[in-house]
Parts: sequence; C-alpha cells; structure tokens
Amino acid sequence: MNLPVRNIGIIGATGHTGEELIHILLRHPFIRMSRLYNTSDDPVHIAECFPRFKNRIDLTCRKPDLDDIDKHCDIVFLAIPHTVSLSLAGKLLKMGKRVIDLSADFRLKNRRSYEAAYGVKHSDPHSLRKAVYGIPELRRETIRSARLVANPGCYPTSVILALAPLLSLSPASAGSIIVDAKSGVSGAGKKVAAGFLFDEVNEDFKAYKVDEHQHAPEMSQELSHLAGRKVPLTFVPHLLPLSRGILSTIYVEKAARAGGHQLNVHALYKNFYKNEPFVRVLKSGLFPRLKDVRHTNFCDIGIKDTERHVILISAIDNLVKGAAGQAVQNMNIMAGYPETTGLL
Amino acid sequence: MNLPVRNIGIIGATGHTGEELIHILLRHPFIRMSRLYNTSDDPVHIAECFPRFKNRIDLTCRKPDLDDIDKHCDIVFLAIPHTVSLSLAGKLLKMGKRVIDLSADFRLKNRRSYEAAYGVKHSDPHSLRKAVYGIPELRRETIRSARLVANPGCYPTSVILALAPLLSLSPASAGSIIVDAKSGVSGAGKKVAAGFLFDEVNEDFKAYKVDEHQHAPEMSQELSHLAGRKVPLTFVPHLLPLSRGILSTIYVEKAARAGGHQLNVHALYKNFYKNEPFVRVLKSGLFPRLKDVRHTNFCDIGIKDTERHVILISAIDNLVKGAAGQAVQNMNIMAGYPETTGLL
Amino acid sequence: MNLPVRNIGIIGATGHTGEELIHILLRHPFIRMSRLYNTSDDPVHIAECFPRFKNRIDLTCRKPDLDDIDKHCDIVFLAIPHTVSLSLAGKLLKMGKRVIDLSADFRLKNRRSYEAAYGVKHSDPHSLRKAVYGIPELRRETIRSARLVANPGCYPTSVILALAPLLSLSPASAGSIIVDAKSGVSGAGKKVAAGFLFDEVNEDFKAYKVDEHQHAPEMSQELSHLAGRKVPLTFVPHLLPLSRGILSTIYVEKAARAGGHQLNVHALYKNFYKNEPFVRVLKSGLFPRLKDVRHTNFCDIGIKDTERHVILISAIDNLVKGAAGQAVQNMNIMAGYPETTGLL
Amino acid sequence: MNLPVRNIGIIGATGHTGEELIHILLRHPFIRMSRLYNTSDDPVHIAECFPRFKNRIDLTCRKPDLDDIDKHCDIVFLAIPHTVSLSLAGKLLKMGKRVIDLSADFRLKNRRSYEAAYGVKHSDPHSLRKAVYGIPELRRETIRSARLVANPGCYPTSVILALAPLLSLSPASAGSIIVDAKSGVSGAGKKVAAGFLFDEVNEDFKAYKVDEHQHAPEMSQELSHLAGRKVPLTFVPHLLPLSRGILSTIYVEKAARAGGHQLNVHALYKNFYKNEPFVRVLKSGLFPRLKDVRHTNFCDIGIKDTERHVILISAIDNLVKGAAGQAVQNMNIMAGYPETTGLL
Repeated sequence: MNLPVRNIGIIGATGHTGEELIHILLRHPFIRMSRLYNTSDDPVHIAECFPRFKNRIDLTCRKPDLDDIDKHCDIVFLAIPHTVSLSLAGKLLKMGKRVIDLSADFRLKNRRSYEAAYGVKHSDPHSLRKAVYGIPELRRETIRSARLVANPGCYPTSVILALAPLLSLSPASAGSIIVDAKSGVSGAGKKVAAGFLFDEVNEDFKAYKVDEHQHAPEMSQELSHLAGRKVPLTFVPHLLPLSRGILSTIYVEKAARAGGHQLNVHALYKNFYKNEPFVRVLKSGLFPRLKDVRHTNFCDIGIKDTERHVILISAIDNLVKGAAGQAVQNMNIMAGYPETTGLL
Repeated sequence: MNLPVRNIGIIGATGHTGEELIHILLRHPFIRMSRLYNTSDDPVHIAECFPRFKNRIDLTCRKPDLDDIDKHCDIVFLAIPHTVSLSLAGKLLKMGKRVIDLSADFRLKNRRSYEAAYGVKHSDPHSLRKAVYGIPELRRETIRSARLVANPGCYPTSVILALAPLLSLSPASAGSIIVDAKSGVSGAGKKVAAGFLFDEVNEDFKAYKVDEHQHAPEMSQELSHLAGRKVPLTFVPHLLPLSRGILSTIYVEKAARAGGHQLNVHALYKNFYKNEPFVRVLKSGLFPRLKDVRHTNFCDIGIKDTERHVILISAIDNLVKGAAGQAVQNMNIMAGYPETTGLL
Repeated sequence: MNLPVRNIGIIGATGHTGEELIHILLRHPFIRMSRLYNTSDDPVHIAECFPRFKNRIDLTCRKPDLDDIDKHCDIVFLAIPHTVSLSLAGKLLKMGKRVIDLSADFRLKNRRSYEAAYGVKHSDPHSLRKAVYGIPELRRETIRSARLVANPGCYPTSVILALAPLLSLSPASAGSIIVDAKSGVSGAGKKVAAGFLFDEVNEDFKAYKVDEHQHAPEMSQELSHLAGRKVPLTFVPHLLPLSRGILSTIYVEKAARAGGHQLNVHALYKNFYKNEPFVRVLKSGLFPRLKDVRHTNFCDIGIKDTERHVILISAIDNLVKGAAGQAVQNMNIMAGYPETTGLL
Repeated sequence: MNLPVRNIGIIGATGHTGEELIHILLRHPFIRMSRLYNTSDDPVHIAECFPRFKNRIDLTCRKPDLDDIDKHCDIVFLAIPHTVSLSLAGKLLKMGKRVIDLSADFRLKNRRSYEAAYGVKHSDPHSLRKAVYGIPELRRETIRSARLVANPGCYPTSVILALAPLLSLSPASAGSIIVDAKSGVSGAGKKVAAGFLFDEVNEDFKAYKVDEHQHAPEMSQELSHLAGRKVPLTFVPHLLPLSRGILSTIYVEKAARAGGHQLNVHALYKNFYKNEPFVRVLKSGLFPRLKDVRHTNFCDIGIKDTERHVILISAIDNLVKGAAGQAVQNMNIMAGYPETTGLL
C-alpha cells in the first residue's frame, strides 16, 4: 500500500503505556517513530530505560519542547498522568497536531464529574468540547476527523464493549447493572507504592475502591448515552495477582417491564459486532479468559442468559485494547491506515 | 487441661484436604493421629507422599480396613471424593464412630438436589437424615452431639457466613442475590487435568461453570433455611492464578418493600459475630484480602452499604476454613475440646 | 521487497512450539501458512484448539498426509516429539521438501549418544548425515543450503551462544565448565503430568535431572566442536515458577596453563557478536533478565570476569530463540528472506 | 513441662522478620509476648499493621524505650536493619538482657570485613567480641550461655549447613566452591523500591550482585572456620518470582590431591545430621524443593556425587530457618526450652 508516512511523538514514553505504545509502533509499517519525551530533566536513551528495546530503537527521551514537537511530529500520543494532559493538549491542537490522549483529562464531557472524580479543576474546557471519546467500535466516523481523541480507560473499555449491543438495541430490557471487574497489576502503571510490591500482590486477591472508583462516571456517561437514559451502575474492581488483563463479569438485571424474554441476546451480539476486527463474541457456552487476549487488541465477550440476569463476561489486555492498542487503532482511523495495521 | 485423647483416622490422607488435615492435626495437642488410609493398593509412607512431613510423622497410608478402623480410631475424617463417602459413612456410624465427612455426600438434605447436582443416586438416605451440616457459627449445639457431620463446601462456607446475619435477622430487606466468587486452584484438589497445568492457570483468569456450579444448591439450602423462604441466587465462580483462598463478592439487592434503609448493617454484623473466634468483621471502609486469611481458619468479612445494594465481601482459605480447618473445628466441638485448639 | 512466497506446513501444530510457530508466522509477510497437521484422528479447527487465534487464521488441523504435504508445502516444520520426526523427515526430504525439525532427532551426530540420551534406536542415519545443526550465529552459511535443519534445544541454545566466543577464540583459557540453568515451565511442553500442575509449580523451585539431562550431550557436542577438544561440562537444570524463559549461569574455570588473564573477555564478546541481530552483549556490570527477552528472539549475555572464573549469564525465551523463533530464523536463511523477518 | 515463662520483646516488629517472629511466637507455649517496638513515631496496633493478627494479639507497637524494655522483657529480638542494632545491643546487654540480633551487625568477627561489606564503621567492638554466631547445628553449646546471638543471614544459613559436613570432616577433599543461590522476594524485606514491584518481579528471573553480595564474607568466615583454612568461594545470588525460600546449588570441586574419591558423601551427611531435628538429608537421588520447607524451620539437603564435583542442593524458608525460625530456635536453646518448641 502506498500510504503517507506520519511522524509520531510520544509524550510520557517511559511509563507503562508509553512502553507498550513503543512496542506496538515498532511493528507498524507506515509510521516513523520520531520523538520520545518524558518529564525527567535528564535525557535517557529509551533502551537504557527499557533494555528490551536494545538494538531495536535508537531514540533518546527528552523533556517535551513545543518547537521540537512542532517540527518533528504529526500525531502526538499523550501517555501521561491525568492533569498533565490538561496543560499540553490545547497547545498541541493550536499547532495543528492531532492528539491522542491516554489520560482521563478529556473523557468526561461534564467538567463537574471530572472534578469530582479526579479532585482537580478542569482548566481546558475549550479542548474538552472538541474531544472525541475514542472507542472505535461505537464512534468510528467521528474519530476519523477528530483533532483530539480521549482514549478510553481500561475498565470502561471492557464494560462499554460488553454492554453496547444490549443497551443500544434493547435499552428497555435492562434493569440495574452490576460490574464485578478484575484487573492485573499493570493497570496501576509503574507507581512505586507499598501496595504494589511483589510480596503484597503475589498470592493475594482483594477488592479496592468498592463502589467508588474514578472510572465509574466514565462508564455511566457512555452507557447512559447508549441507552438514552441514566443507567444505574454498581462497579467493584479487584486486583489480580498477574501482570496484564481485565476480566469484567457484568450482571444485567432483566427489567420486569421489558417482557422481552424473547430477546436472543447471543444473536444480537453476534450481529452487532459481525464486522468488527477486534471484538470476538464467543460461542454460546464459552467464556473468555485473559490468556486468549493477552498481548492482543481483542475484546472477547461471553454471554449467559439466565432467568433473572443477562451475564456478560468480557476480557481485554488492559495495556493493549485498554490503552496503547486502542490508541493505535484510533491513530490508524485518524490517519487513514487500515484499522488493524500493527495490531494483529 | 486434662482432656481425653481421641484416636483419629483419616481416610483419603493423600489428597489435598488430607494433607491439610495432617498438617493441622500435627499441632493439635489432644489427639493421637492413629491411622491414615487412602484408596491405593500399595501402602505408602506418608512422608514419601508428602516430603514436607519427613521427620514429623511416622505413619504408613493403607487401604481402609473396617476392623483396623474399629480398633484404632474414635473419630474418622472422610477426605475422599463424593460418592466414595456414601459407601463408607454408614458402616462407620454402625461401628459407633463419629464421622466428619468432607465430601459433598451428606450436605444436601434433599436427595433429588444431590442427585441433580452430582449426577449419581444417593444410596444412603438413612445416614443422610442423621447428618448435621457442620457450620459451627450457625449450628454449634447440634454439632456437639452429632454422629455424622457434613463439612460444608468451600464456596458455601464463604457465602453463608457472609450472608447469615443479614438473612437471619432481616430477611425482608434482601432481594435477589448475586455471588461473584473467585477461588485459588487448590479448590480443585489434585486433579491431573490439562486445565490445571501451570501454564494454563498462570497469568490467566476466567469464569467457569457460570450459573451452574454444583455448590449453588448447597448455598440455596442453607440461605433459604436462614431466611425462612426461598432465596434467589446467582452464582458465578472464577479461577484465580494462586494456590489458596476464596474471595466472594456478594451483591444483595435491597428489597423495595423493606423500607428498612435504616438498618445499620455493619452494627448488625459486628453484633452477630461478636463471640465468634473465627469470623472477623472488618471496620467500615476496610475489605478483606486473601493474604490475611491464608493458612488460617478465619473468615474475614467487609461490608459496603450502598443505595441499591448491600455489598458483602468475604475471604477464607479454602483448604482451612473451607475444608480441613472447619473439619477440625467441628471435631473440637464434638470431642469437647476448646473450639480453637490447633487452629490459632 | 519482491521475494518468492513459500508455502509452509507445520506438523505438530497443536503443541506448545506449534502454537508459537503459528503466532510468529502470522506476522511473517512473505510466507503463506498453508497446512497444519497433528497426530489426532479428529480434525480440529486451530482456533478451537487455541482460541487466541480466533478471527486471525482459518485452518483446520488434520493428520499428516504425504500427498497433501507434497502438494501444498514447500517448507515443513516438524514440531513433534522426538522419535516421531525420525519416521517423517526422510520421506519429506525425498519429496524435495526442506525440513526444519524442532525435535531432538537430528541434533546428535553420534547415533550412540542419541540412543543413550533418548533411549531409542536411531532409525534414519541417512538423513542424520545431511542434517545441519541450526544455530545461525555459528553456521549461517551451511544452513543456507541445508535440506534438513536440526533446530537446537532450548538449553543448548542458551549455553552455546554464551560460550561460543570464549571457546572458539580462546579455548586454552577455559577449564571445566559448570552450567546452572533455570527454565520456565513451557520448556516441558504441554505434558499433562502431576509435576506440572499449577499447585506443584507455583511458589516452588527445584533442580531436576541433576547432571543427567538429555540436553547435555548436545551441548558437549557443539562446545567440543567449537573448542577443538572435549569440553568437560556439568549441567544442572532447575524449574522456575513462570511460563517462559531460560536463564543460564555459566561458570568457566580459568585454566592455570592459559596464563591469559590478560584476555579482555567483554571486548571479545562484543566483537564476536557485533553483527548479529539477535545476540545482545550487555554492558559491563549489567546482567540479563528474562523480562527483557520474553516473547523475543534475542539472546542477552552478561559477563563477569573474576579471579577464578569467567561467569557468563545468558537469557532467552525458550519458545522463541529456544525453539520456534530460531526455527523461523533458520527458515528465513534457507528461503533467502532477510534473517529478522517476522522476528522483530 | 514446667518451664519458666520468659517475657519477650521484639524491636522492629513491623518488618518482614518481625511479622514472622510474631507469627511463630504466637504458637510458643512457654513465652509471653510482652512488648513490640518499631521506629515510627506514631504508636500502631500490631493488628492494624498486620490485619492477619486481628483477634489474635492485642499489643501496640511503640518506639523502643530502654526503661520500658528493662521492666518488661527478659529476651529481646532485634529485627531491625543493620547499623541500628549497633546502637542498641550494647545497652541491652548492660541491662542484663539476652539479645538475639537478626541484623548483620554482629556476624562478622573481623570489623574490617564488616565495614567493607556494609560500608559503615562498626561502633561496638566490645559487644562484637561477646557475640556468638547462632547456627545451632554447629554451635549449640556456645549459644546456650550466650548473652548476644548474631542470627545468621539467610543465604549463609543455606550454604553453611550444606557444606558443614564435607568441610569439617573432609576439608582436604574440597577444592574451589561455587554457590549458585536463588531467593524469593521476601529476602529483601519490605523495601519499597521499583525493583521489587510486582510487575518487575513477576514472570522474571535474574542474577544480582554477581560475585559481590554482602553475605559472601559471612559464608567465607564460617566455612573457613569449619575447614581450618581459607575456602575460596564464588557466590552468585538470583531473584525468584515467589515469596519465600532459598535454594542453593553448590558445586564443590574435588581436590586432585585428596585422592579420597572413596568418600561416601551421602553417608557422611546422614551421620553428621542424624540427631538434628531441623536438617533433613534426602535419600540419594532425591533433591529438595522450596515447597517442602516453606513455612517450616527445616533445611533440606540433597547430594549428587559426580566425577569432578560434589553437588549439594539445600533449601530453606528464608524467613524461618533463614531468619525468625532460627532466632526462636536460638532462643529455645538459650532459655532451656526444648529446641523445637513452637517450630514444628
């Protein structure tokens, strides 16, 4: 294919999602990885930071400099903690760059929800209005022309994809929703905190932020948008003793008023996702496992239709479909590349 | 203390729960571990089977022989697969032995439920009628004089203890119940099957037997008994990549009719378990983790009271409180030993 | 590049190395994955066997049929247990196919060594004479024209690459050699045996086949070849509680007679491997870790030169550089593709 | 038994070894756990620090106060980082307390070795002279009357016990020694450092401090003492992705001059340790695994006698026999309790 080469910059290249972005983009045939940035004062060769990239990439990571970005990057990934994106995205947009932000800063359309969930003021409502929530399976066309894509959170990706067919096609059939989600440790980034030490996590399992996780408003926003009404949601995340993956077990109460016990949920899902390259609806009786999506951009979905609930189980790799992979999928759409490029 | 020494026999000493029973009883000051049996034709020294017991115990494991049992054992633990207990328990009872059965054979009072769940006929209804479901926190007095104790399943223990206060004290407040449970691998015993290979389990996580696990009828029986009415229950177990522990996250829908939003759930739990040595109700805002109950007979319970649900999270070690530890607790009660002997 | 497309067949596609071969070849731009075979009587779609390949490959795995192979395959990978290759390789060679055998059947030039190590007679000495031991860094040119490549064992790969510079350039400086190697569980394939159950391996570590592993003769053969004399070797493998990777810690006694304490070992290694795409000699003071080579075809080598020993530490992914990756590297060389194709 | 109750104090109760000490002493029938101390300014209930101890122990951890110690403790465990013990041990000895120091401060008889290994000046040579290196199997009688016991390091324990019979009974037969040791993560204590995060350790394996670990002088001191001459030693530790345990694979070169190929190494070991309750010499052909010593005070030893080397493999739990368990074993000896009390 004769496609235009884009120059890519990554800000936050030395974090977990930065590392995964580099890993994916190294196999991408159409882009040029042009610049890597992080917030440390001292430049560091990326292969010293990540020895796995030794002999594979020869770039030094420096503090982000707007002129340098302007000269060398067409598309910029922000793989930085929330609030840091707030101060950068607007400037990059003004320079005409297209921006894919992996932080939470532009996901919540309602500034108050953002401020409540993250405890900081939202200082760039102008960019926020332009931002497109980047879940390709639901907003492909808007993403195509977006200047700023807010890449979804890992938990929300696993939950929204699992619920989208039901809520958008049969919203009346769904009563209250319980999401019991389990994530590997890489979801927490590279935070050096006692709670993430090997000895604390290994052979352990626990719930955390029970019904008060900051990703809940993001799910609610998108699910309510799909259903056309406010969707009541209970979200309990847990920490798994493994590196990668999110498995969400979702219980959708069947609304009495729906009457619609006739709904063939499995067929509805099969049809909804029939042309999607990265969503796999499993055969009836089969359920996803993390093993099968690890290091892939797939979201696997299993369905069990019981008397009182529709049980949906979805699995993704939190660093790929839940972060860097979905970001590259968004980039492919924005740049006019085949959507799966570099991702299979 | 001057307590009578009991002679203990274990049938099924070379399985997972057999091993754990030996481990616990080795520290029990009042009993004499008298005989070990398993179903293999070749006698095996227990320390050859479990090298960790080398220099600690000098017993050979043989095929069970009724005369030998009669002569050498006062109390017999059956740590054998279900259906095998069916053919042994009655004979042991006739010999006047007291029996603690760790299999599923005498847990379900309704033979049809048993036959549906386990796919075999129940051939000993006579013993079944005598059997006491051995959950000490709820039936201590009946256990004291029981001849045959049906030691509860691991999942049911974690679920019943978590729900008992709410269902027995405020049954009207509870609507439908969802149990999202996660178990370590030892729950499956020592089965040599592809699905339990290291490479299959490590770094993986998945649901299994979704809404069709054989432990569900056991939970329903006991919960309905506590609530005084049939309790609708959805049960989805998952497999954790770790060795020991069950964490159950339980969502109890608040019944509209209850009105009782005034219920102080936390206080109710604190009070219900205030004299129990092995149930720890955590402070509000804290939730259990497997690490804290591993290798112990504790059941830790955390509570979150939300608008629509009471969320209960319980943690046990499936091999201890979920099997061998609870069996020894039952034995202590039956034999008149202090209940915590050998278990702290 | 305009390179000829080759049709590839894999015999033994449903094993561990078969799975890894498929995974690698799916990203190979020049080949057509034509046929998959395994020994089961019932055909199975490869995505039913490995759900991770769902939506990525549409091939059914059948019993190997010589006519079918003849028609559809140019190059055949044998990813089957040793002794099975013995009966197939000769026939494929006669049909003019080029064969890459991942079993041990054609690695040992001395039939007696083979028969002693594997306990079976070697029935195809004719093919054995033609076989090339496929370690590209040492025999690239011979591999180029080989009809039958014996793909090296995982342990030998990690040991031979670590020792080749020293033994080939300064054989007199090396006295006796101790290899203390540690492997992840996938090295054992998908054997369903009690010893490989999760509960047996998790949180455990042990040596096995102490000084009597069947890979030792393979190492001895190649190291003696490099050194031009018999190299005395002690090899002790250990089992790590992780899925992938081999780390070998190698102690080379400094020969008194060598006097050559002046040897700059690090420079020697840097130079020896300076043009190799898949061997990375680490900076002095740095040592390899499995993390950095996992899912890659790299062999990382660290060096410590002490008074009495040269300590060499090498790390590979046993399924990639130690099996499927190296096999594809060999295929690239044989087919005239750039050597790193599909492997970076 | 009618044995005097001792009052125990632990300084450093909130660290890894402190936690293990509490865990062991909770089952010790003869002592009274009297006081817990740590260096934090804020008192903390030990069950808030370690929720596993909830309902089991009711003690608050405070800053160490000499008067308080004097009044309430007969025996004091120091489970604090090296250099901190230096400033405390002398004062406690002056108050007539018996002290078991789990740090490295009193292990090396040669102050210069200490200062070289730990990079600090040794400020209490007076106490150092009184200190007894507390490895019961080799110095039981001296420990009995010691006022200050220097509890051995974890690696040295695993190495010294493995080599003691050979070096003390047949020193001439041993040439140079290579120790390739592998430790679980708890060996590093509760250090909150990037290198010990779950994601860094999980699925990884690596060597560290290659031939420059601070435990090497400790081994050399004791091994040279046993052999009656300086023993040349190469020590390479590795980090295992598991919580507990050290397995050391030790290669003892057979000295040419010894001639003693007739030595029955296995019999020599069996005999040397025949009365030791915590050292288990495995049958010929069997080798230790971490699983069998985890949570125990045992040291398991396997032996392979080859042409060029005696290979010794030992396994311990680094927190028990390698730290807290051995400390309690020493306490039992000092206090006149049966040596295995609380440890089986």
